Amino acid sequence: MGGSIYGNHFRISTWGESHGKALGVVIDGCPAGLPLSEEDIQPFMDRRKPGQSAITTQRNEDDKVEILSGVFEGKTTGTPISIIVYNKDHHSTDYSNIANVFRPGHADYTFYKKYGLRDYRGGGRSSARETVARVAAGAVASKILKTLGISVNAYTKSIADIEIDYNNFNLDERNNNIVCMPDAEAAEKSVEFLKQQMADMDSAGGVVECVATNVFAGIGEPVFDKLDAKLAQALMSIGAVKGVEIGEGFNASKLPGSVDNDAFKVDNDVISKTSNHAGGILGGISDGSPIVVRAGIKATPSIAKTQSTANEAGENIDINIKGRHDPVVVPRAVVVVESMVCLTLVDLIFASMTSRMDNIIDFFNNRD
Amino acid sequence: MGGSIYGNHFRISTWGESHGKALGVVIDGCPAGLPLSEEDIQPFMDRRKPGQSAITTQRNEDDKVEILSGVFEGKTTGTPISIIVYNKDHHSTDYSNIANVFRPGHADYTFYKKYGLRDYRGGGRSSARETVARVAAGAVASKILKTLGISVNAYTKSIADIEIDYNNFNLDERNNNIVCMPDAEAAEKSVEFLKQQMADMDSAGGVVECVATNVFAGIGEPVFDKLDAKLAQALMSIGAVKGVEIGEGFNASKLPGSVDNDAFKVDNDVISKTSNHAGGILGGISDGSPIVVRAGIKATPSIAKTQSTANEAGENIDINIKGRHDPVVVPRAVVVVESMVCLTLVDLIFASMTSRMDNIIDFFNNRD
Amino acid sequence: MGGSIYGNHFRISTWGESHGKALGVVIDGCPAGLPLSEEDIQPFMDRRKPGQSAITTQRNEDDKVEILSGVFEGKTTGTPISIIVYNKDHHSTDYSNIANVFRPGHADYTFYKKYGLRDYRGGGRSSARETVARVAAGAVASKILKTLGISVNAYTKSIADIEIDYNNFNLDERNNNIVCMPDAEAAEKSVEFLKQQMADMDSAGGVVECVATNVFAGIGEPVFDKLDAKLAQALMSIGAVKGVEIGEGFNASKLPGSVDNDAFKVDNDVISKTSNHAGGILGGISDGSPIVVRAGIKATPSIAKTQSTANEAGENIDINIKGRHDPVVVPRAVVVVESMVCLTLVDLIFASMTSRMDNIIDFFNNRD
Amino acid sequence: MGGSIYGNHFRISTWGESHGKALGVVIDGCPAGLPLSEEDIQPFMDRRKPGQSAITTQRNEDDKVEILSGVFEGKTTGTPISIIVYNKDHHSTDYSNIANVFRPGHADYTFYKKYGLRDYRGGGRSSARETVARVAAGAVASKILKTLGISVNAYTKSIADIEIDYNNFNLDERNNNIVCMPDAEAAEKSVEFLKQQMADMDSAGGVVECVATNVFAGIGEPVFDKLDAKLAQALMSIGAVKGVEIGEGFNASKLPGSVDNDAFKVDNDVISKTSNHAGGILGGISDGSPIVVRAGIKATPSIAKTQSTANEAGENIDINIKGRHDPVVVPRAVVVVESMVCLTLVDLIFASMTSRMDNIIDFFNNRD
Repeated sequence: MGGSIYGNHFRISTWGESHGKALGVVIDGCPAGLPLSEEDIQPFMDRRKPGQSAITTQRNEDDKVEILSGVFEGKTTGTPISIIVYNKDHHSTDYSNIANVFRPGHADYTFYKKYGLRDYRGGGRSSARETVARVAAGAVASKILKTLGISVNAYTKSIADIEIDYNNFNLDERNNNIVCMPDAEAAEKSVEFLKQQMADMDSAGGVVECVATNVFAGIGEPVFDKLDAKLAQALMSIGAVKGVEIGEGFNASKLPGSVDNDAFKVDNDVISKTSNHAGGILGGISDGSPIVVRAGIKATPSIAKTQSTANEAGENIDINIKGRHDPVVVPRAVVVVESMVCLTLVDLIFASMTSRMDNIIDFFNNRD
Repeated sequence: MGGSIYGNHFRISTWGESHGKALGVVIDGCPAGLPLSEEDIQPFMDRRKPGQSAITTQRNEDDKVEILSGVFEGKTTGTPISIIVYNKDHHSTDYSNIANVFRPGHADYTFYKKYGLRDYRGGGRSSARETVARVAAGAVASKILKTLGISVNAYTKSIADIEIDYNNFNLDERNNNIVCMPDAEAAEKSVEFLKQQMADMDSAGGVVECVATNVFAGIGEPVFDKLDAKLAQALMSIGAVKGVEIGEGFNASKLPGSVDNDAFKVDNDVISKTSNHAGGILGGISDGSPIVVRAGIKATPSIAKTQSTANEAGENIDINIKGRHDPVVVPRAVVVVESMVCLTLVDLIFASMTSRMDNIIDFFNNRD
Repeated sequence: MGGSIYGNHFRISTWGESHGKALGVVIDGCPAGLPLSEEDIQPFMDRRKPGQSAITTQRNEDDKVEILSGVFEGKTTGTPISIIVYNKDHHSTDYSNIANVFRPGHADYTFYKKYGLRDYRGGGRSSARETVARVAAGAVASKILKTLGISVNAYTKSIADIEIDYNNFNLDERNNNIVCMPDAEAAEKSVEFLKQQMADMDSAGGVVECVATNVFAGIGEPVFDKLDAKLAQALMSIGAVKGVEIGEGFNASKLPGSVDNDAFKVDNDVISKTSNHAGGILGGISDGSPIVVRAGIKATPSIAKTQSTANEAGENIDINIKGRHDPVVVPRAVVVVESMVCLTLVDLIFASMTSRMDNIIDFFNNRD
Repeated sequence: MGGSIYGNHFRISTWGESHGKALGVVIDGCPAGLPLSEEDIQPFMDRRKPGQSAITTQRNEDDKVEILSGVFEGKTTGTPISIIVYNKDHHSTDYSNIANVFRPGHADYTFYKKYGLRDYRGGGRSSARETVARVAAGAVASKILKTLGISVNAYTKSIADIEIDYNNFNLDERNNNIVCMPDAEAAEKSVEFLKQQMADMDSAGGVVECVATNVFAGIGEPVFDKLDAKLAQALMSIGAVKGVEIGEGFNASKLPGSVDNDAFKVDNDVISKTSNHAGGILGGISDGSPIVVRAGIKATPSIAKTQSTANEAGENIDINIKGRHDPVVVPRAVVVVESMVCLTLVDLIFASMTSRMDNIIDFFNNRD
């Protein structure tokens, strides 16, 4: 079985490799009547595209999206939406020296073992470039959520040991610095740190945090398709992510119940929580508080330092990875995390529509 | 959509509530010819059942499994295996006082919002008792894995701040102490700590770690059904789990690439890695090294301490949760984590069988 | 992969063999708040159960259903509904003589080839008794449809060459005769014919027709999960069904477009069709007219006449099938067809709820 | 939920409308190592493309396929294969006169009711042109089957009342006539008949038959994903198909068991059947005999004759459908039926690989 389809109600099918002709996604299950054009999607693509700064790769891609189907007279028709992004800058020759080498920390070896052969050009399907398709679909999901009053925002929480200070938190600031941090000071420190890593021919990781606000209570399908469970799959499926947590996350394992429990309270007949250690999810179902999720991302495995490894011929060798490589993927992962959260929320929001018989009856009575 | 089905090739459908008549699971897709009886499953049930010690609940359940279908003359037939566990000790009256109260840290409120009503007896489907069905299915998955030469073992890595020392690591020791720690010393400290938490009318969380050895390289379906992504869903779907990580996990976000990368080496024509920061998964596919995964578990939300909360009538109230409650769920979650890892591995191992055309041709040529 | 799960939104997982301990079904995705008890299901079971007449088998089963989960205080809770039916009359010894014989027209050989072994007692999972679980789930689906104002009724249209006369059509009559025909005269002829077949140690087939009225226009998910496509799968999945057709069915292949096309007309602002050759489905989507579907069912393969066949030892042998066998399965298949249509309709009605963005917005605005 | 994804192991996701920019398919789960190029697919496209004869439409399309991903150095890589066919000849203006009219026999009304709007250009997604994507995927599935030694061939069995004579059966003849009949005489009569229908401003339907030979015994997943059940879904999902049957099909409802049953026999230790009324499927599982399936196809609904109907404004009107329209879709449906059979077989052949534990053990032992 292939694994390039995600979702049960709002399903995406992604395709494409780093150095193939194009990458794209087919969205099956987008409701009809949503105003949609390339202008809704392009800004998301621009947020993830390479070639933006001193600490990112020089690959020259427009990442210009084109909608091929599913939209008519400016609106979605309810039929599959096919979106394509052509690869402009795919100089395969750059990669010929690593064609039969298993780069440490990369998927070269595992793809080879799984498939018996591999597209060695830029990592093929295991390249971070694969996320182009996720982000294109995520932009559509994000528009659906906005239409329903829901906001989803991701940002860099930390680069290596440098963490944002929530006292300085300013989401707008995220767009002003090249590390996507909502804290100017931490961003500055991070950039300095990353420059040093580059000078040292090394790389760095970090943490991306994502917050979704105004999510209806009641989203998530116990017991296996709980909201947190699907968010965990969604985020862990992003290359380089090694950990996912919700609310307090691993820290919750250290807190006593008396501290970790969020009390409910009633104010003007509205029930809310006095704190949000739970990250907006109880029993795998949204509770109306902000959903808070984090992804821990490892350092870019491509480093200029000499590394020892093996090749397909079964020889122990040394390699020096050349070519363009970000010292950190975290800033570009921000919009990918946001996209995966949007896709998961739309899918589970749609799933939730059949939770209650009375709502179903109303639905069909109210429809014209 | 309901969310009580897990897996694509080896699919389980679980059912049952804390205080219903029974709980159970239907396994669809278990291969024919596997020797199977209740004796294979019961030991897994016994590992998770309550009433075992001073720090666990007094609920008196045999958790005796019965296979109702899918096995004939001691072997699986390839048709659905239905397994049932009857609830013996379900005194609903114990819970009447919380029938219309939203307990902090529990799923009472979210189930109520989602479904418009809820089975308040012991949390209904949101009870940890739901995992009975997961463990029954996990025992079958575990037997399949053993038949293929794969071992999966989970244990408690930490309770609150008390962590095992890998220098003292002894897996057998896990079965000798009531906190399921493979380190006698850490176990003793943990038990002391938990007794204090009980005395303080409070609770604690911890971390469960699971290691799978001898997993073939090549398991995991990029890009959304990667091995790590499905493990993340599987573990996060367990109640009280708030974080999941693979290998170095969140710590990988702090390490430079030069440290986090695992070098490949060749020894006698066999390729392996010199370290395992990756936790046995690269690009979402197993690399032949041990799979290492951890789940961060929050403290039991049911505490004897007075807590403020709200009820269905929209009133602010104080509650004191009475009745039997573990101060920690971590030890009983160990076999649940192990089960979910087994279920995920079997599902993706089966999925991997169609990765290569040459293997498929061989398969049909070799079959009688 | 096992194939015992049906549906995407209202999913059923069935299990059980002819001579196992029990049969059952787990329904995942039934909305909360539906009043439900065994009394809703038992009448469906009674319609399919054996031992009812001179032309049906003498197997003595109560087929008493028991709900094990998912219902609390008389209403569904939104969590999985587990339904069980115990087998009372399972004398395995009756079948020992056919343990290693491949009965003509049965699935003995194919199960053996697929699974390498088989439960030979009464056909195991390939027995018509498997449909017990479908009917139990179908009863729940039927109740949901009734709540939405939709009626589904199946009946025997023909036994061998004896067909009902629509001029005599009376649905109530269906319950008055043992062949489930809505035409007393055709029923009488059929019974005579079947008695003759029994005397001849032979059997017969027939056609079941099913009509669903008041189905909303707009149900069905092009292009693969069209309403007619899923109905075709649903009906063809019933043992002994060899053909499925919608509306004119195969006869449509002989009609010119000018005859087969149904004209639309407007009456008091309501659009309807002047005829219904299409059987209520256009482009795979319901058009508001009655859905009309038929299943062609082969003769019972178990006949008393001597037949030549092979056994597992690879010998050519003669067999005389003894024991209880209906000369026709058609009458008992009626409620099975009805159940599969109900299950398919509920699943696709739920799927249709996300077809239009405006309806989704209204849904979440209208919810409390 | 959208319905444009088919298959569980070899999954296709199709997209595109009659008059959009392009149509295409993404195949997820194609094994790695299959030699594949556009040359494997183009012949299938050519078999279905319009503009071929006096009795087919004049639409001028090359239907030139392009593979965008998933193939590297002439072989599949195991990652998603994206295939695209651009629309050349999409004169939307041709269709403006029917923009708000509900054509009889078409899906205009049902799409409008389902989605609230519709792409009226040539029927949008409900056009027969949608099958371009199915055929492209079917060509890949066909190549996999050939690699496994399996042949699948469809042909026109009848046009209206004109049926092929099996005494004249010659598969090669199928390619020599414009109605795809394997009988020159019947073909000639059919062409004459169709010319008359065109002269009468009317249309015709027919039956397509498909035979798959050398299919391994043991394919099909009881009880819902039986081979016949999935074939029924696959074929009924093709536009204009109103009936599906296997082997004797509806005729089986008229035969006594003594005639319809196929006897097993042993010859030189090989078990086979002495007849094939079952069409190669028993209990939903292939029995090693040829798989025989038929699809009944209605007459083209677009006819030049004046028809009465309704429009979106709710008015009763008369229409004369102009433009290019085949008097029969049957010949072009032949390769579509063949494609859907291939897709279904590959999917279920892959599914069957986990039926037996001994085969699974062998698989992993034999793998390098």
